[in-house]
Amino acid sequence: MAKVFGHIEGHPVGSRYQRRKELSEAGVHAPLRGGIHGNSREGADSIVVSGGYPDDEDHGDVIIYTGHGGQENKRQVSDQDIKDPGNAGLVQSALEGNLIRVIRGASGDPKHSPASGFRYDGLYRVESHRSKTGVGGYRIWQFRLVAADVSDEDGVTPFHGDTTHEPAPRHPVTIQRVIRKSAVTQLVKQLHNGRCQMCDQVLLVPGDSHYSEGAHIQAIGQPYNGPDVLENVLCLCPNCHVLFDYGARYLTDDLHIVDGVTHEEIGKLRTHRQHKIDSRYVRHHRGRWVATD
Amino acid sequence: MAKVFGHIEGHPVGSRYQRRKELSEAGVHAPLRGGIHGNSREGADSIVVSGGYPDDEDHGDVIIYTGHGGQENKRQVSDQDIKDPGNAGLVQSALEGNLIRVIRGASGDPKHSPASGFRYDGLYRVESHRSKTGVGGYRIWQFRLVAADVSDEDGVTPFHGDTTHEPAPRHPVTIQRVIRKSAVTQLVKQLHNGRCQMCDQVLLVPGDSHYSEGAHIQAIGQPYNGPDVLENVLCLCPNCHVLFDYGARYLTDDLHIVDGVTHEEIGKLRTHRQHKIDSRYVRHHRGRWVATD
Repeated sequence: MAKVFGHIEGHPVGSRYQRRKELSEAGVHAPLRGGIHGNSREGADSIVVSGGYPDDEDHGDVIIYTGHGGQENKRQVSDQDIKDPGNAGLVQSALEGNLIRVIRGASGDPKHSPASGFRYDGLYRVESHRSKTGVGGYRIWQFRLVAADVSDEDGVTPFHGDTTHEPAPRHPVTIQRVIRKSAVTQLVKQLHNGRCQMCDQVLLVPGDSHYSEGAHIQAIGQPYNGPDVLENVLCLCPNCHVLFDYGARYLTDDLHIVDGVTHEEIGKLRTHRQHKIDSRYVRHHRGRWVATD
Repeated sequence: MAKVFGHIEGHPVGSRYQRRKELSEAGVHAPLRGGIHGNSREGADSIVVSGGYPDDEDHGDVIIYTGHGGQENKRQVSDQDIKDPGNAGLVQSALEGNLIRVIRGASGDPKHSPASGFRYDGLYRVESHRSKTGVGGYRIWQFRLVAADVSDEDGVTPFHGDTTHEPAPRHPVTIQRVIRKSAVTQLVKQLHNGRCQMCDQVLLVPGDSHYSEGAHIQAIGQPYNGPDVLENVLCLCPNCHVLFDYGARYLTDDLHIVDGVTHEEIGKLRTHRQHKIDSRYVRHHRGRWVATD
């Protein structure tokens, strides 16, 4: 089934459904089974939140959503795989900035769930994801979903049109790669003269200017709460920044760079004597992507 | 003089000054001469808009600001150089998302300028820049400045603290790399499977997902007004996208890739039979960065 991002016409926020079949026929959540409608190629366009995983947390505008897989008879019996189509779909939607329809079912957290059946609760974006050992003792994947502010026209305008040549929206919407900036990130970029600490590239542009990004190792903001200090920031090119933020690169304690897909060492982080890296932050970042060592 | 980004304490928007000397002592615009306070390393933190260049346009919230250089006795007698410290500073501030203090002088466009002396008119961001042949017949550089919406806390919170270890702001501010998204950009990315048409990289992340960006060749939005059509979009990695958007890469009509700093050919754009590029758009983009051929 093609993915359709954004609101479904005729199904405003708050719409109620008795059965999964109605949700499916409406196109609000297409599959009859499974909490995530998605795959790695197209992304995910909708999820059902219904308390199926004990590590789920529903805070209303923020949902910590556990990925799919590893359960038998509603018990976790094995690790979840990020390559599971639903999980990979949520990763792809995070990368694309796609908005995801959230449907809550009656068996979810009573504080935010309908008393019976299902309710369409609007659009959320995937702010970040990580893996961790769940309460069942197995590795799970978790996605932090944040309610999209639909009053903010940039980036969150409901985006109709699926990925298979449906009518284009009249105006391209803007999505953003968010880059945190502070005196600390500025200083790190200066110490490295804008040269990427991973791939050694400098993006030079006419005018003798260059572009680089300050990347926090332990992410700042919820739920990671890393500090904005020199020891927690890298100077990276945008490509390595994307790879680092999505777990395609992580660091060993002695600052070797590891490919997060193959888990092979592919180089060593270039350092600067005035810019020490604290291995606590390195371990925190690595812990999001590989089983804690 | 160190650059200080954002408002200057004690000098709210609307503050008036009789002379450049007062502006300088206040730190609102540090240099006594010259319209731009900046250099390629630190960026530019303030400009004076006072009608010194006939190609300037002042629309209030949007200013088309001509760069520095090439004048003698107030007449344009040679091409401007993007490496001029003021011009390069504006490029660097565009790359960094720095906000720039705008001061209007009495000799500017009467519609928006003070009747006498100088007035601090608040913070603007450098949205884009380009070169073109000015009314004087020489190559000039122009910067599109847009009033920052200080009600939007992300990205435009006045950022105090200069670039030389002054107290850090309590919270890192968020700046954004804006990436336009539409059904057209999605399709281009799919046709190329997320592989950069310039450097051939795919940014693979765990989950079999990948990240790429749809890059408009002739920029969309003011003042370039390129269309959101297949023939005007490239699939690029973030690094090549930054380089392309800032003129560090441009294309020949037969789609060879040229380094915008050295003007040497460095490769050929990879194409796809279902994705033709229209050379009109290529020429428009190139015309922003090199003298029209």
